[in-house]
Amino acid sequence: MEEFLNNALFSLKRSAIRVYNQKARQTPGCISLTLGEPDFETPLSVKEEAKASLDRGDTHYIANNGSALLLEKISEFEKEKNGLDYKADEIIVTVGATEGLFTALFGVINPGDEVLVPVPAFGLYESIITMCRGKFVPLDTSKNSFEISREMIEGAITEKTKAIILNSPTNPTGCVLSRESLENIRNAVKDRNIFVICDDVYRSLIYTDNYESFSSFKDLKEKIIVIQSFSKPYAMTGWRMGYLMADAEIKKHLELVHQFTVVSTVSFSQSACIKALETDVSPMVEEYNKRRLFVLKRLSEIELETTEPLGGFYAFPSIEKFGLSSAEFCTRMIEEAGLAAVPGSCFGSDGHIRLSYCCGEDKLKEGMNRLEKFCKSL
Amino acid sequence: MEEFLNNALFSLKRSAIRVYNQKARQTPGCISLTLGEPDFETPLSVKEEAKASLDRGDTHYIANNGSALLLEKISEFEKEKNGLDYKADEIIVTVGATEGLFTALFGVINPGDEVLVPVPAFGLYESIITMCRGKFVPLDTSKNSFEISREMIEGAITEKTKAIILNSPTNPTGCVLSRESLENIRNAVKDRNIFVICDDVYRSLIYTDNYESFSSFKDLKEKIIVIQSFSKPYAMTGWRMGYLMADAEIKKHLELVHQFTVVSTVSFSQSACIKALETDVSPMVEEYNKRRLFVLKRLSEIELETTEPLGGFYAFPSIEKFGLSSAEFCTRMIEEAGLAAVPGSCFGSDGHIRLSYCCGEDKLKEGMNRLEKFCKSL
Repeated sequence: MEEFLNNALFSLKRSAIRVYNQKARQTPGCISLTLGEPDFETPLSVKEEAKASLDRGDTHYIANNGSALLLEKISEFEKEKNGLDYKADEIIVTVGATEGLFTALFGVINPGDEVLVPVPAFGLYESIITMCRGKFVPLDTSKNSFEISREMIEGAITEKTKAIILNSPTNPTGCVLSRESLENIRNAVKDRNIFVICDDVYRSLIYTDNYESFSSFKDLKEKIIVIQSFSKPYAMTGWRMGYLMADAEIKKHLELVHQFTVVSTVSFSQSACIKALETDVSPMVEEYNKRRLFVLKRLSEIELETTEPLGGFYAFPSIEKFGLSSAEFCTRMIEEAGLAAVPGSCFGSDGHIRLSYCCGEDKLKEGMNRLEKFCKSL
Repeated sequence: MEEFLNNALFSLKRSAIRVYNQKARQTPGCISLTLGEPDFETPLSVKEEAKASLDRGDTHYIANNGSALLLEKISEFEKEKNGLDYKADEIIVTVGATEGLFTALFGVINPGDEVLVPVPAFGLYESIITMCRGKFVPLDTSKNSFEISREMIEGAITEKTKAIILNSPTNPTGCVLSRESLENIRNAVKDRNIFVICDDVYRSLIYTDNYESFSSFKDLKEKIIVIQSFSKPYAMTGWRMGYLMADAEIKKHLELVHQFTVVSTVSFSQSACIKALETDVSPMVEEYNKRRLFVLKRLSEIELETTEPLGGFYAFPSIEKFGLSSAEFCTRMIEEAGLAAVPGSCFGSDGHIRLSYCCGEDKLKEGMNRLEKFCKSL
């Protein structure tokens, strides 16, 4: 019966990241810098609030879009912290950023529509676009310091272009889009019917004063869909909590996708997420920044060219000079040096590897030593 | 920009049930028998286990399909309790039954495919089918004691038929499909490429020894997708936990839909769901049965014809003799008698109303008294 399934599923690729994770696990003593999740614990206040909510019996259905209190809190938080104007009824609490992305992309794509994705990019975008019968159109930024030029975007737009996904800070590069890149996109979309999906899940982990999100262009609000997550800033990956923000006219349609896919998020996680938004994440950001600076210093010593990551918890050095494919490089590095990283090919950019610094100091130090030894051996 | 959204969204209807819920809430003293969720609390052992899991720090990513232990437990449970043979790797833990249904329907529907749905039926089926660009094909069972005849199904099948959804016990009727209905479906699908989606979420709430699910036809396993939920038997609606079971060859594709929609369910709910499966639900079933028998006795006294519900927590009496539409009947009943029920039209069967007995004895007694008074006034 397999052959009678939705034929859009047959073009879906499984993430190759897990292949490297598995290989790392099967290699005794291997250090893994592949992880895409914080090594911190969820803040105690957040866990305690979920427990209290369970004790209060908050185990029944809640409103589809999330509890009124949480929606109000998100609206305030986004206003104060990020200067965005989304009312409570322009927000949907989603099952992590993934369900938010799915809802946004499913909500905008008609079969055959094209979606522009600056690459290197998180593989999930291509998967969801394909699943929705859209066409994934990569914009290669790897020769342009991961920025988007006017020519790049104007050259990619067609009659079929329905949306562009911006992920800044970016997984896997850690880079943030410059004002110039944002202006280039703004000029390209402002007079066209193109949605801009801002996957801003790393925006709480920023190591620069110059960060700007496309969502700050408020005159384009009706084109913008913002995706956020509790996973990264509050180390809550297993909670599956995030949110989507969009102009009321758009959100009223997207909420149906959410409702008919998952009904709602978990009842007793609502007040816990309020506690999360009240948490000061600066000590964690400081710790990540310390690791980031250490990784950059070591990469410079190892002479691996790296565009400076200004957000998130990844670095994306070039390995082009070795003349190996990123898959070959990473496979050999596990086998010969006991160090795992993710090949750039997993993100559509073969000449790089992704190193995560979601791990303790000792592991990171030893990992960078192994990287050095391995590079010298090539 | 609204007009540029996925055009499949424009055909989606919002559930009318909420209109009646809202009207009931706005009417002082109104008794509401509209609820589709248990009035019981989640068992203490389940809540305590979730709290312990939080304390253990189970807040990070888990495997997409659910924890290995939970999958193993579900496999054993389904074998022992329901006689089904699904290995751990034929199971996906989903965000409630809704995400399971979405995954199943999205997984099988190509645009234009027809999906047969015996009606009256839960409105979610039509919504998901429409969202997936399939065609909702209702099979009207209301003139056949809510059973499916050979003629009914053979007359509805076309070249385009991709699946049939069976929901037994049924929301809204509480009826269970007879062996004869199941055989009629079996004969219709066995030599055709048609999937049978068994939404069996009410099968733990059964008041007969003669219940059988279509999933027991093991020779058709490759055509069958079973949807289950923790919501109804364990009063866990707010937890958003359920599961999907399918033959390995089918499941390996469906798990991609799940992964790219939600990643996984909540990490610290995994072991709690194991506790749920260890819970004896018979005291709750007994209590529901007492209420069911009371409702049936009162409906008989009020002289409202009702096909006997043998599962779930609903009764679906006919109101045809009053010559009112079900919407008019329910609106007037709120206004004139202070009692809310859901019109049959919300389930595609206008000559009925749905009464839920998810509420305490006193409320149920007073509710039935008000129903009696209202019917006498017509």
